[in-house]
Amino acid sequence: MLPRRPLAWPAWLLRGAPGAAGSWGRPVGPLARRGCCSAPGTPEVPLTRERYPVRRLPFSTVSKQDLAAFERIVPGGVVTDPEALQAPNVDWLRTLRGCSKVLLRPRTSEEVSHILRHCHERNLAVNPQGGNTGMVGGSVPVFDEIILSTARMNRVLSFHSVSGILVCQAGCVLEELSRYVEERDFIMPLDLGAKGSCHIGGNVATNAGGLRFLRYGSLHGTVLGLEVVSWGSCLVQRSPRGVLSRLSWAHVVAQVLADGTVLDCLTSLRKDNTGYDLKQLFIGSEGTLGIITTVSILCPPKPRAVNVAFLGCPGFAEVLQTFSTCKGMLGEILSAFEFMDAVCMQLVGRHLHLASPVQESPFYVLIETSGSNAGHDAEKLGHFLEHALGSGLVTDGTMATDQRKVKMLWALRERITEALSRDGYVYKYDLSLPVERLYDIVTDLRARLGPHAKHVVGYGHLGDGNLHLNVTAEAFSPSLLAALEPHVYEWTAGQQGSVSAEHGVGFRKRDVLGYSKPPGALQLMQQLKALLDPKGILNPYKTLPSQA
Amino acid sequence: MLPRRPLAWPAWLLRGAPGAAGSWGRPVGPLARRGCCSAPGTPEVPLTRERYPVRRLPFSTVSKQDLAAFERIVPGGVVTDPEALQAPNVDWLRTLRGCSKVLLRPRTSEEVSHILRHCHERNLAVNPQGGNTGMVGGSVPVFDEIILSTARMNRVLSFHSVSGILVCQAGCVLEELSRYVEERDFIMPLDLGAKGSCHIGGNVATNAGGLRFLRYGSLHGTVLGLEVVSWGSCLVQRSPRGVLSRLSWAHVVAQVLADGTVLDCLTSLRKDNTGYDLKQLFIGSEGTLGIITTVSILCPPKPRAVNVAFLGCPGFAEVLQTFSTCKGMLGEILSAFEFMDAVCMQLVGRHLHLASPVQESPFYVLIETSGSNAGHDAEKLGHFLEHALGSGLVTDGTMATDQRKVKMLWALRERITEALSRDGYVYKYDLSLPVERLYDIVTDLRARLGPHAKHVVGYGHLGDGNLHLNVTAEAFSPSLLAALEPHVYEWTAGQQGSVSAEHGVGFRKRDVLGYSKPPGALQLMQQLKALLDPKGILNPYKTLPSQA
Repeated sequence: MLPRRPLAWPAWLLRGAPGAAGSWGRPVGPLARRGCCSAPGTPEVPLTRERYPVRRLPFSTVSKQDLAAFERIVPGGVVTDPEALQAPNVDWLRTLRGCSKVLLRPRTSEEVSHILRHCHERNLAVNPQGGNTGMVGGSVPVFDEIILSTARMNRVLSFHSVSGILVCQAGCVLEELSRYVEERDFIMPLDLGAKGSCHIGGNVATNAGGLRFLRYGSLHGTVLGLEVVSWGSCLVQRSPRGVLSRLSWAHVVAQVLADGTVLDCLTSLRKDNTGYDLKQLFIGSEGTLGIITTVSILCPPKPRAVNVAFLGCPGFAEVLQTFSTCKGMLGEILSAFEFMDAVCMQLVGRHLHLASPVQESPFYVLIETSGSNAGHDAEKLGHFLEHALGSGLVTDGTMATDQRKVKMLWALRERITEALSRDGYVYKYDLSLPVERLYDIVTDLRARLGPHAKHVVGYGHLGDGNLHLNVTAEAFSPSLLAALEPHVYEWTAGQQGSVSAEHGVGFRKRDVLGYSKPPGALQLMQQLKALLDPKGILNPYKTLPSQA
Repeated sequence: MLPRRPLAWPAWLLRGAPGAAGSWGRPVGPLARRGCCSAPGTPEVPLTRERYPVRRLPFSTVSKQDLAAFERIVPGGVVTDPEALQAPNVDWLRTLRGCSKVLLRPRTSEEVSHILRHCHERNLAVNPQGGNTGMVGGSVPVFDEIILSTARMNRVLSFHSVSGILVCQAGCVLEELSRYVEERDFIMPLDLGAKGSCHIGGNVATNAGGLRFLRYGSLHGTVLGLEVVSWGSCLVQRSPRGVLSRLSWAHVVAQVLADGTVLDCLTSLRKDNTGYDLKQLFIGSEGTLGIITTVSILCPPKPRAVNVAFLGCPGFAEVLQTFSTCKGMLGEILSAFEFMDAVCMQLVGRHLHLASPVQESPFYVLIETSGSNAGHDAEKLGHFLEHALGSGLVTDGTMATDQRKVKMLWALRERITEALSRDGYVYKYDLSLPVERLYDIVTDLRARLGPHAKHVVGYGHLGDGNLHLNVTAEAFSPSLLAALEPHVYEWTAGQQGSVSAEHGVGFRKRDVLGYSKPPGALQLMQQLKALLDPKGILNPYKTLPSQA
């Protein structure tokens, strides 16, 4: 069996400081800090409206009267200072910048409802914003949309310590929720590198996947209820002859639909088949159908034993076989299976000074197990590692059970995004592909791009068939972009894959949906948008294809 | 540790024949046969239209020309023989009967599409029907709706033996799918007593829960894709001033929406965030928004070790503590936790001649574990049973690992529904309630109804907070009904529970949704119905509250 190294943690793993202390998942440094202002000397991000062929829709602009109304709704929660607005106007990747002049910070669903009612009446566009950690520009304005931040909606409302059902406001930071439920012997059903900044409302709005997806599944299954602010003033009735007519309807209850109506689907029931599962519409709708204000979510019990193995594999074929073997031998205790290639390891070493705990390999695999019996889990994992090493699937490896060491191993995988952002301009692709062919596109692009790309890397959630394909260059280059697109999307479509496995659509991918969705589906999406947000004020320019 | 009895299976368990051989979940006998005709001597089921205050909506009636058209679309698949139509017009509980004169048996999505296009043009109502095993009258006509049966759409289209992703037509019987995937080392993510008859399309349309829900979760999480036939001819566009206008739109691709358009959301990807998750609308929509024709579903690996423990508990408090203890000690291997009360056991004994394998107890609990290592699982379960017995939570018990014995233990729980149907007229309630108070309503009703009820029982998916509350009587009695309703619904609403945890709404519960859904939610449901089925031809009189 592989000797357990963590008891004598090699010095080379700690070579160089990993950056500022604190929430270990949080990237540090001026370029990498999520949502930070441009540091002196850092080039300013070009305005989205100047860089992309977008035209502002005929929304109203914010007036003095609007500001006065907002101040009445959210006293002390109206931000108009240009300096304070810099960061919220720029996305995490620092390639998109809006020109919003107003950011609102409501504290309750009621305030969100009143804001939206006012904006609906005045035809003002609204950009909901959580932690602003998205990868597709879904959380920053394109023009002057009012930014509606959930940052002050950060209270836990209830937690049922037997069932593990958590009810909280949408602006709770994921890492803080994790801490809260872990103190009570539960864990959050999702985990991602952005945990130190992202909000649970944003996670739900984008149907975030993440590192625990393999074990705990989709938010479509773990979210039990939502309270959403949207629009609900239109009731369509069918006359006896089947002809449609429209009536206005004053709602008495609350889901915050686009005119401020609040839709209360905030059940905390594990099972509830009383009609259409309406919350499902809003999960993954990216703030374009309604603003999520409250979330009810089912948390799994905290595992008694967590093990992480970090292994080197000699080739991608061996990565795949390791995965199959792993599933067979670890079964129900497997909670994550991630992979990264050699270039990823070089980049986290170069830019973040994190050293590999294993010998240099073409591929690395991170396996996590979570179970209720430490002895049983160690035995399962031990047998697996013995087999994997003995058969040559794995050429080197290390294992950790201690929480600190587990976090250090996870950092090698979680901080790849940060390392890439320090390597230059990054072209990012998040694809679902058949797992047997997951890495082929990386090899193909290296050949195709040659020296025009600085680095081409592949890593991601192999267990879910989700590849993060990234290409870095010294600076943005139209010819490099042309070599990448639509090639990558056509490749993906050819495999019946998804051009956005988990990152969503946002601003960046709205016009490539057709590679993964047929026209009929896109039309139904437009119909749903028109039904729930007829004025189109919720997060415009996002998620749906730009109209012809 | 509790001695393992199965090696010397007590004779008393086999006292009396359990009924006809064959698919062990399938109820037998004239009264219990699902979908059978009235046996000679069995009272005929009253027509729904005579028993309930419903008025037929002004749909067309089927003409000779319609029949000719159907015969062209589905040659040999048009059933008009009154005797053959008897069973499909009656629900499994034999309390609802429609008067449909036509049953269609398409074989492909294309045929479903053409049928629906014709019905849309002619304003003919359609009742989709799978296995006709539903508990709420959702699968039988109320008047003369055309029955569209999925019985001939029973092909497996593909199965990926590494990922476990199954793609099949909607009319595949659940038990046959189980057999198919089990031969390939996977299992279906859901299991229910009706498995011998129910169709996977119906399971998805009703968001079926079942016995494995505790472990594998909701179909909202395990269904990866759907192909659905519905209506898609209307595109709503927003003019520059925000005013809505309606345009006709000829679709080029296929999901079978209500006018025959086919919506292809049949991805087999584990993760796909390219826009709104449209399939979620149809999961649990009970055939009222579209007809599911094809399903893509993620199957879990077949566990190497399955254990079932059947235990007697002295009280409901002990049942609850057994559940908590179980979760703590069995953790990730727990795959089911069911309970039943003493009267349930008496009824399965009396009507089905199944004998209890443990001494008579006020409550019984069935625990199933599923894991990848038989030794580890036996150890976990052994420790748990030792603790449970030693602490008095459990007073008697038996355990099984052999498949045949496992099935026999499961039969005690799965055949309660059948036993109840032989006990007389059954008033059925399927509720989500806080688990600590799950049984209170049973106790309350016994006191409230006194000798007016024959039996009052409680059983169900305790692990999910789902109670099956049933009251039997010699015959239907309006005064008994008045004592039950709205009392049971008001009780449930008072606990913020669900008046339909898993059985759905169908015909029976359409007017009690208000106990679990606010008016705003019901209005949004109506709006979605109007969008996707403006003529209201899909499964009318079901799922949505009857219009004022």
